[in-house]
Amino acid sequence: MRVDVSAPILARNERLAAENRQRFAEAGVFVLDLLASPGAGKTSMILATIDALRDRYRIAVIEGDIASSVDAEKIKAHGVPAVQINTGGACHLESDMIRRAVDTLDLDEIDLLIIENVGNLVCPTDFDLGEHAKVMILSVPEGHDKPYKYPNIFARAEAVILNKYDTLSVFDFDEAEFREVVSRLNAVAPVFPLSATTGEGVDAWTAWLAERIEAVRAGSGPAGLVGQEGTDET
Amino acid sequence: MRVDVSAPILARNERLAAENRQRFAEAGVFVLDLLASPGAGKTSMILATIDALRDRYRIAVIEGDIASSVDAEKIKAHGVPAVQINTGGACHLESDMIRRAVDTLDLDEIDLLIIENVGNLVCPTDFDLGEHAKVMILSVPEGHDKPYKYPNIFARAEAVILNKYDTLSVFDFDEAEFREVVSRLNAVAPVFPLSATTGEGVDAWTAWLAERIEAVRAGSGPAGLVGQEGTDET
Repeated sequence: MRVDVSAPILARNERLAAENRQRFAEAGVFVLDLLASPGAGKTSMILATIDALRDRYRIAVIEGDIASSVDAEKIKAHGVPAVQINTGGACHLESDMIRRAVDTLDLDEIDLLIIENVGNLVCPTDFDLGEHAKVMILSVPEGHDKPYKYPNIFARAEAVILNKYDTLSVFDFDEAEFREVVSRLNAVAPVFPLSATTGEGVDAWTAWLAERIEAVRAGSGPAGLVGQEGTDET
Repeated sequence: MRVDVSAPILARNERLAAENRQRFAEAGVFVLDLLASPGAGKTSMILATIDALRDRYRIAVIEGDIASSVDAEKIKAHGVPAVQINTGGACHLESDMIRRAVDTLDLDEIDLLIIENVGNLVCPTDFDLGEHAKVMILSVPEGHDKPYKYPNIFARAEAVILNKYDTLSVFDFDEAEFREVVSRLNAVAPVFPLSATTGEGVDAWTAWLAERIEAVRAGSGPAGLVGQEGTDET
């Protein structure tokens, strides 16, 4: 079904993604596309990441949802700029939606842009938004068998966050099997077990992320200037 | 994005769904399309439903997944016929996939056909498969705010199962707010709090389902004969 119609959509999306990527590179902004099922803890994870990194980096968030602005409101209440995209019915974000959202932000005032994609383990996988990294969250209550059933997203992700790790004792989650299957699908992506709620394990994740933010800042703009000024402002 | 391409796909899907519906009606088979996020407990819920109803009804299952046959194997190990559909990359089942799966089953030997859709709160909502009822599962760990963010599926479902209810004390889930928002989106769908694992609350759900199975059996086939014979066989 999908093959008939998706090729031209994907081609247009790739073209606009390349334009987004260029803008992000010029401004020295590291862009993270965060993917997960509904309820895996994307928004809580973003709030925990903001708390860990806000003293070092200027952060903004683009929230993608079918409907409502509850997530963007949570982020704004946390003191960070947030743009809400409502897709209507679409199951994923596309590059032109990101472009329009970015038009409302001042990229020169941002070091880290986090995009919260629509809650979905399938559709967002295929859509390049121009980001530097797609990172996925699986939460312990979802079960350790998910890599068998949704292999594409595990294969594609630059890192895998295993959230709600504090509830491991409540659920029948085989962490060894989970890690084994993930490593077969993706030999390089690290797995970060953590709890966005208790904060356990968040440090390892934000250290990984900070390394990547620094690399983009170092390489950005004309002679790398954009990424080297004013980074300690809030 | 989606609007440009989805109209002809949906029209074809509707036509084939009508053909499926006719087949199900003639055979007196009640068909349930079960929708949920990955990891909400669809397969566990199907196993619990089989355990509750297998002495009264002949049951078969169609399993929809991007990849793997782990779910169909679980169902077969439970002694119930199961057909696995792998969608490749598609985020939902369509009527022609169901038609081909049904071709491998003997509908005259089935009272209840359960379709486990791909784990996704968005895409399966719009696709009629010819089923009698779409029922959705939300699990407590996903959070009570999901009806705000995925309203279409809550509006469309004939019933809402609130699974993993035994973990209510572990998560910050506001059941009153959840019920209030669901009732605004959908004034008629009952909400069944239950745990597929502990069995708590499953009776109310299976009583609701049994009523609907009986109604279809009573109205089915030439003079209703198909639905009235051999129902106690395993």
